[in-house]
Amino acid sequence: MKHLLSILFTLFFFPSFLLADEGMWPMSEIGRLNLSSKGLKIPVDVIYNPKGVSLVDGICNIGGCTGSFVSPDGLILTNHHCAFSAIQEASTSQNNYLENGFLAKTRGEEVRAKNQTVRITESYRDVSSEVLSVVQPGMDPGARTKAIEKRTKEIVLDIESRNPGKRAEVAEMFIGKSYVLFIYTYLKDVRLVYAPPRSIGEYGGETDNWMWPRHTGDFSFFRAYVAPDGSPAEYSATNVPYNPRRHLKVAPEGVADGDMVFILGYPGRTFRHRTASYLDYEYRVRMPATVEWYGWQIEQMEAAGKTDPAAALKVAPRVKSLSNTYKNYQGKLVGIRRTNMLATRREEEKRLSDFIYAEAGRKAKYGTVLDEIGRVYTEMESAAARETLLQFLTRSPDAIRVAFTVYEAAQERQKPDVERESAYMERNWKQTSSRLLLSLRNFQRGVDQSILTELLVRAAKLPADQRISAVHAVLKGGEPETAADEFLDDAYGSTRIQDEKFVEDLLARKPEEIAREEDPFVRMAVALYPDVKAMKDAEKRREGDLNRLYSLYLDVKKEFLGGEFVPDANSTLRLTFGRIKGYEPRDAVFMQPITTLSGVVEKHTGEEPFDAPEALMELHRKKDFRPFSPPKLQDVPVGILYDTDTTGGNSGSPVFNARGELVGVNFDRVWEATINDYGWSPAYSRSIAVDIRYVLWVALKLGGAEHLLREMGVKTILTPDF
Amino acid sequence: MKHLLSILFTLFFFPSFLLADEGMWPMSEIGRLNLSSKGLKIPVDVIYNPKGVSLVDGICNIGGCTGSFVSPDGLILTNHHCAFSAIQEASTSQNNYLENGFLAKTRGEEVRAKNQTVRITESYRDVSSEVLSVVQPGMDPGARTKAIEKRTKEIVLDIESRNPGKRAEVAEMFIGKSYVLFIYTYLKDVRLVYAPPRSIGEYGGETDNWMWPRHTGDFSFFRAYVAPDGSPAEYSATNVPYNPRRHLKVAPEGVADGDMVFILGYPGRTFRHRTASYLDYEYRVRMPATVEWYGWQIEQMEAAGKTDPAAALKVAPRVKSLSNTYKNYQGKLVGIRRTNMLATRREEEKRLSDFIYAEAGRKAKYGTVLDEIGRVYTEMESAAARETLLQFLTRSPDAIRVAFTVYEAAQERQKPDVERESAYMERNWKQTSSRLLLSLRNFQRGVDQSILTELLVRAAKLPADQRISAVHAVLKGGEPETAADEFLDDAYGSTRIQDEKFVEDLLARKPEEIAREEDPFVRMAVALYPDVKAMKDAEKRREGDLNRLYSLYLDVKKEFLGGEFVPDANSTLRLTFGRIKGYEPRDAVFMQPITTLSGVVEKHTGEEPFDAPEALMELHRKKDFRPFSPPKLQDVPVGILYDTDTTGGNSGSPVFNARGELVGVNFDRVWEATINDYGWSPAYSRSIAVDIRYVLWVALKLGGAEHLLREMGVKTILTPDF
Repeated sequence: MKHLLSILFTLFFFPSFLLADEGMWPMSEIGRLNLSSKGLKIPVDVIYNPKGVSLVDGICNIGGCTGSFVSPDGLILTNHHCAFSAIQEASTSQNNYLENGFLAKTRGEEVRAKNQTVRITESYRDVSSEVLSVVQPGMDPGARTKAIEKRTKEIVLDIESRNPGKRAEVAEMFIGKSYVLFIYTYLKDVRLVYAPPRSIGEYGGETDNWMWPRHTGDFSFFRAYVAPDGSPAEYSATNVPYNPRRHLKVAPEGVADGDMVFILGYPGRTFRHRTASYLDYEYRVRMPATVEWYGWQIEQMEAAGKTDPAAALKVAPRVKSLSNTYKNYQGKLVGIRRTNMLATRREEEKRLSDFIYAEAGRKAKYGTVLDEIGRVYTEMESAAARETLLQFLTRSPDAIRVAFTVYEAAQERQKPDVERESAYMERNWKQTSSRLLLSLRNFQRGVDQSILTELLVRAAKLPADQRISAVHAVLKGGEPETAADEFLDDAYGSTRIQDEKFVEDLLARKPEEIAREEDPFVRMAVALYPDVKAMKDAEKRREGDLNRLYSLYLDVKKEFLGGEFVPDANSTLRLTFGRIKGYEPRDAVFMQPITTLSGVVEKHTGEEPFDAPEALMELHRKKDFRPFSPPKLQDVPVGILYDTDTTGGNSGSPVFNARGELVGVNFDRVWEATINDYGWSPAYSRSIAVDIRYVLWVALKLGGAEHLLREMGVKTILTPDF
Repeated sequence: MKHLLSILFTLFFFPSFLLADEGMWPMSEIGRLNLSSKGLKIPVDVIYNPKGVSLVDGICNIGGCTGSFVSPDGLILTNHHCAFSAIQEASTSQNNYLENGFLAKTRGEEVRAKNQTVRITESYRDVSSEVLSVVQPGMDPGARTKAIEKRTKEIVLDIESRNPGKRAEVAEMFIGKSYVLFIYTYLKDVRLVYAPPRSIGEYGGETDNWMWPRHTGDFSFFRAYVAPDGSPAEYSATNVPYNPRRHLKVAPEGVADGDMVFILGYPGRTFRHRTASYLDYEYRVRMPATVEWYGWQIEQMEAAGKTDPAAALKVAPRVKSLSNTYKNYQGKLVGIRRTNMLATRREEEKRLSDFIYAEAGRKAKYGTVLDEIGRVYTEMESAAARETLLQFLTRSPDAIRVAFTVYEAAQERQKPDVERESAYMERNWKQTSSRLLLSLRNFQRGVDQSILTELLVRAAKLPADQRISAVHAVLKGGEPETAADEFLDDAYGSTRIQDEKFVEDLLARKPEEIAREEDPFVRMAVALYPDVKAMKDAEKRREGDLNRLYSLYLDVKKEFLGGEFVPDANSTLRLTFGRIKGYEPRDAVFMQPITTLSGVVEKHTGEEPFDAPEALMELHRKKDFRPFSPPKLQDVPVGILYDTDTTGGNSGSPVFNARGELVGVNFDRVWEATINDYGWSPAYSRSIAVDIRYVLWVALKLGGAEHLLREMGVKTILTPDF
């Protein structure tokens, strides 16, 4: 990895009392963690070395997940769920790779993964002063937000114009305080190498999602290709395997209970440096509303799917996505209640407040910060009923979502590039528009109409001072249920919004041309636009307020704690460490940290999602566990559990042992640990990986991928019965 | 306990390899168990002493459950679920004791439990030869069954006529081999003393039923009263507390993980000495049919209850009872599959079969036994579809059940007393008829009609050679769904079968008078009778076959094992021993054997069945765990888990420590242990008790029942804050 500037956060130091296992640490900080005292058996510069090659160079971002290079020839190990759409697209009616699994016996058989890209972090540097130079004291909050957004876009466009083929991103490390510019290379020729059947890769399905004990073989292999000269290139038969600067060594001997492990990856978002008023708003307002609405939609979709298999197929991806969030938020709500997190956060904040008021200078500077932040959330709460409905209206029913996106895009694309919402900037427009068109394929009138009906009825019942005029325009003062039915029966009968040609045509038009369109949903989207725009402006204003206020809050918190703390996750590269460790989720229940093949067999019912392949069942009957079975266990380890600090985005992250060898592929957290996003705890924060021994055993014994094991340098210890 | 004859099963000896923890041991055998080597710290004759007073004299049967005398004044400790109906009946609209709990502050406040009786075992003796004297070689199987039934009834009636006020029962210890006569005293004046609110006594409800970890405070106290001269008497204000020959000492210090425990009680039925063909029939035929039909009924009842609260109230007891069996059978089906029990049983039987064929004499005597038993189950399987429907028709819909019972009673009561089915014998008739009339109160037309409709439709679809003529008579050849609706809309409109007066009147009539009755359901019951009678005759014939065959089977099994084995449970007094012990129900999940008050609080949601009383929550917040909290735990133990061998009927059984002191009240098994009925396993056979420390803590801290603790001789260690 090349570095433009290698030291980040130079202001920060981490006092020892913060050195618990909590923390998704930026690379610049891991030298301070004294990892050898935690059991690390290699020098820390083997993990991260700003002046040379390190383990960090062995990982990449692949379609939002993390991937590991596990051979010199660009072989990538990641999760099955990260490879899902690639496997699906590679499948044909003759060869259903999702159901049967896929193996390329030779490189020539590797299948192009069309929409998959591999992102490699080239470099990063602190750009806080460049970003914050546009902020003026006493600036209007909305203007502040817009100025920061514009400045970061300018930095990005400037870098990209000077580095053709690279992509740039500015990440906010601490709200309103520090910003880091990342420069990435994208490899665009990615090919599918091996995937187990979904009866292994998705074993347990939604039932086991967010759950332990886990028996999912959630792994797949890709390979990245580049032009013969080593430069990134579009797919071509003449491309050659990419040679990563570093690849990771897999450790077929695996791990044991208590072993030290660490993870490198790109955790998405956490919210630990927020006030109690934020947590209270999340807990009482935002999450319950989301859970209720997602639950309602899931119920509708499942009911529709029961009577109509075609509808079931169309709504399946949405049900999966909604269910994932639904179960996650339910876990968070239960977790916040059980751990009494709100009360604890309030107590901590009381101590911070006492600290502020204990000294006149601090009182003058920070005395109103907590209250001012609280008032922003109070405002959000009072606006929530209406704003939530506006958001749901423009996102949940496909008919409105598509029409609204088209009209908003036309509005935004009138503006200079750097002033547009990110999705509508030139650099992102191709992806935004092609995704919109692709989404039309899952349009399902019955479900869509029931969702929109419900939202119109709910919106009609808002108090008079919160009216959404676009809703009242279509209901024409009628009794909401009846009026909604009348309008929608007609509208869905006559609309062309599900028609790809029609939408493509709209995408080429100017806002005033779209506004003249007669399509009922386009008209409704146009009517909704002013209200949504006003809402987004209010959001930007609140964001500007919070940006300024949290910057003050972090200053005084740093002063109070007498040191610094790790920034919230923001999809940038982080390290987290811990141990293989069980936990007690409930009174009298202890979860052991390693599951086994016998557990897969135990869960097998013969019906999805517990329908293990007969070949696996047979190997278990024959006790054919070698060569990756620990001698004492007489079984194949399948899942491992550990107390590192992860969140969404850590999917596919390599789990390393103390020697920096790959022992697992991270793919989930336990249900109790969904509240990781607000606070880590040694009691319940546990993450889940598929054990490398299961990866190797499945690939070898069920997949017949011996050549891949050889490529990874794994000895398969041939025995007579192998 | 007085003994007419104290040594039972004198033929039997128990080889040491059978001395695992498996076994519900008859009292006569416990001397052979070497319990001191298992940790027992008292001489075995303190538990059972045919020549004197022992712990066995401290227990009783109370309404089908086991109870423990815990004071010299007849105070009885049993389960809350065993006291449920008594608490319900004692409640008034002003004083809802189920919701609020009940405490008699003085003996004068103790409330009569009208339908509760306490049964004390006076004596027992082997009557095998008396019973089997009526069996002739080569006897017709049906005649054999009837002869044995008649003989046992004669023995019972003879004993009861010579011992006024006592009840006699003959229990079959081994099918077709050994029979024991038990003589019981019944105490009829039973009063409710203390019950916790159902939010403690039923905490966890159906959700936690058959489950661990458990947090149910499933206990209540009764007191037995007798006439001033000490003789059993009906309720009277002049009665005095009963003085049991022995009462049990409670041990407020409780138990710890690994401690030896034993249980005395009246386990109901087990089926371990049956063939693989029996288990196969149960697994493939009988249990799935029951699960399907019970599940269907529960769904109907719950759907009806959702829209109609009055219906919900009426069907609640049936839903509870159906759910209990439903969940139990599901547990059995899963357990048999997971433990591979059928294959194991077949392997064992293969070895037995090899043993039989290895010697000409054995081959001649036993060579066909296994096949002959198998043929009986094959016959049952081929008759199952029709017979199951006949059974469901006469049991599930109240309309038919009541009409059929009335008509069958009239038929049976034409016969001499000893030839009648047991329910219709003079000694049982009062109870049978009053229960029938009582059951009319929960008649709920909507649910009843949907159940009967479904059964008629199913019956109409039986193959032609299995027709139930009574069904075709009412459907009149119409399309089943439509014809059933037509018939039942009329029938439920005009019937008087839900009318108590009408049924009372029918109960007084002769069969031919009933047969002339115009009521549609009475007519249908009369029409069903010949088919049901033929089915019952077939059952008796099969029972006779099995009776003879299992007698042979047990002989050769004894020979094969080179010893004897413990008889199946049959509601007679047994001892079982084991240890406080956790278990691993699934891969990577370990259940610890003691739950705590913190677990109660953790499960609390504020909604049934997890709605703990605020007073309990407050005591937990104040950490007011004394005086029954172990110093190390800083919590109140609530539930305990142990690997003794129990089954239904062990509800309320005392759990003793190694010194013979009461440490818990048994009330359930774990879900995996529902297959205990077919086979015990050290891996999954675990039973559940409420910890005596929770009993005492709740009674003292929430119930204010200090006087009861004093009566039990428990020091409450008064402290300033108590």
